[in-house]
Amino acid sequence: MAEQYFYGGIEGGATHSTIVILKQNGSVVATAEGPSTNPWLLGVDKCLTTIAALVNDAKKQANISEDTKLKSLGMSLSGGEQKEIQMKIISGMQDKFPNISENYQVCTDTYGAIETASATGGLVLIAGTGSNCQLINPDGEVFGCGGWGHMLGDGGSAFQVSMLAVRTVIEADDNYRTPPHDITYVKKLMQEFYNINSRFAILSHAYTGFDKSKFSGFCKVLAEGAIKEKDPLCCWIFHETGKNLGNHIRGVSSKIDKMLLNKTCGLQVICVGNVWKSWEVLKDGFLEGIKPRSSEDDVEINKFQLIKLKETAAVGAASLGARKAGHTLTLDYEANYEVFFCK
Amino acid sequence: MAEQYFYGGIEGGATHSTIVILKQNGSVVATAEGPSTNPWLLGVDKCLTTIAALVNDAKKQANISEDTKLKSLGMSLSGGEQKEIQMKIISGMQDKFPNISENYQVCTDTYGAIETASATGGLVLIAGTGSNCQLINPDGEVFGCGGWGHMLGDGGSAFQVSMLAVRTVIEADDNYRTPPHDITYVKKLMQEFYNINSRFAILSHAYTGFDKSKFSGFCKVLAEGAIKEKDPLCCWIFHETGKNLGNHIRGVSSKIDKMLLNKTCGLQVICVGNVWKSWEVLKDGFLEGIKPRSSEDDVEINKFQLIKLKETAAVGAASLGARKAGHTLTLDYEANYEVFFCK
Repeated sequence: MAEQYFYGGIEGGATHSTIVILKQNGSVVATAEGPSTNPWLLGVDKCLTTIAALVNDAKKQANISEDTKLKSLGMSLSGGEQKEIQMKIISGMQDKFPNISENYQVCTDTYGAIETASATGGLVLIAGTGSNCQLINPDGEVFGCGGWGHMLGDGGSAFQVSMLAVRTVIEADDNYRTPPHDITYVKKLMQEFYNINSRFAILSHAYTGFDKSKFSGFCKVLAEGAIKEKDPLCCWIFHETGKNLGNHIRGVSSKIDKMLLNKTCGLQVICVGNVWKSWEVLKDGFLEGIKPRSSEDDVEINKFQLIKLKETAAVGAASLGARKAGHTLTLDYEANYEVFFCK
Repeated sequence: MAEQYFYGGIEGGATHSTIVILKQNGSVVATAEGPSTNPWLLGVDKCLTTIAALVNDAKKQANISEDTKLKSLGMSLSGGEQKEIQMKIISGMQDKFPNISENYQVCTDTYGAIETASATGGLVLIAGTGSNCQLINPDGEVFGCGGWGHMLGDGGSAFQVSMLAVRTVIEADDNYRTPPHDITYVKKLMQEFYNINSRFAILSHAYTGFDKSKFSGFCKVLAEGAIKEKDPLCCWIFHETGKNLGNHIRGVSSKIDKMLLNKTCGLQVICVGNVWKSWEVLKDGFLEGIKPRSSEDDVEINKFQLIKLKETAAVGAASLGARKAGHTLTLDYEANYEVFFCK
């Protein structure tokens, strides 16, 4: 009997992370959850110890001893885009945690998601706590839009939804901007969610006590305000968010390979992250935002499918890690996703 | 001869701070400069040690021994708006640095500026690294607009100028937004200022290596691009900034006491901070932003003067601190400012 190898994969988000351990035939032998592994939010050292703890959790679950190295560990991490940080994570793991894995691979979180749904590239739009859009053409060429984090971007993310609501309330209360709709309902939600009892109590949430993930949790409350209560300001916020999401796709539209555009089902957009759960209130804005601008060489995308993963993107991360180590995992790509919107 | 008392005052900004020590007749016996004293940016502990170091610096300069307590120390601090943080600073100073001063007073940075120019309240608009607008009516009632810091506000500040430029470049490069003007010149300035050699090198300036003051230093370069080079994008950025500054005044316009509005010279607006140095490129936007909106009960301000302080606002802070301790400093308010724009 051939030796049994184990392949690890991590999907790392700004709020939580998922690890899987697979056999070469694609069967999952362990899945575990953990906190954020974003090296920009945590610093590299904390990122490394979090990764090691995740792997050891999963090994335990799979009845693999901590001393048995994985064949490979693929890490598809929010914040893992830059070569320099990738090298730091790999050399850090090798130095500090020699028993974790024989081989390592680090990429940004979009890669694992695409690899989970397709072996030949694709287009992914993450809208979780943060946001990012990445296109990998079948020839391997990569294009991106967004992914700059909450200070510089995060358009269409839960962070941006929460921040837009908070700013709209503050600016209306200050008489600094005219809000697009009455703020009464959103202000009440905000006071409840952030436990605000005075004019300045929001400051600690935004500064000394800032936690991107906690701050962005307000998005879920606003989504209920839009979907269930149909509050006009909540609905407006999600309309704007939908536009921003559509703008990401439009941003890379001129770079999309014809092979991806001309699939029978149209272009497949892999939609990752909890913001997509509010699709019904994002939809109109999204369809507006994806339209080409007359002034630019954007491409009109006539036919597309929005799909969501049924399987964690950690599976794709494991596949990428194995591939870098010269192995191929057998994945059933079409079983890993489902369609939630067609145009 | 009556005992000689000394009164300290601190003007604390997000980038640097100034301390003065005065005698009761208003004469300045020491002035010193130091780093930021913003308790939200530094944490309270670091804020306290910075304040103590500033006072001891100034005492040395005035040939006052470190053991001689000031009669009062008035602190007009960026980030000093909340009662809770004021109490923390005062009790922290009393506990940890018992020889600094007999009495303490803490307020936000706008108060010291107003008190430097007028004994009967006024309107101040700070546009430095951060921004804030505050109105103190002659009856003592206080109204504000802005002052929420870089995550939630800072409209019209050097931080916002820098961020607007960086975002405009990133979003244009991503094809995510159409920039209002060609980005070539601003992109070159940005690469030079932040020492950027790759697509992602801006990330460390915005996250792990974020320093609000350093990040906002880009504003000065952009101001030269607008004033000297007349680059259209630089000019547009300052036009927007001027609008945001005008919006702050318009925001409190309906609250301004008639006594302040109907001075012979019109309403005096005390303009503090380095952004005002670019007045020539802010002006048109400012005049647009100060106009009342038809939909709201804004008040049209027909006649106004923009004034800048010739004296540090630490003088006003010292006066406020002395007043709280039951003393009155003799200040020549009109000598402390000069007019730079009349309408």
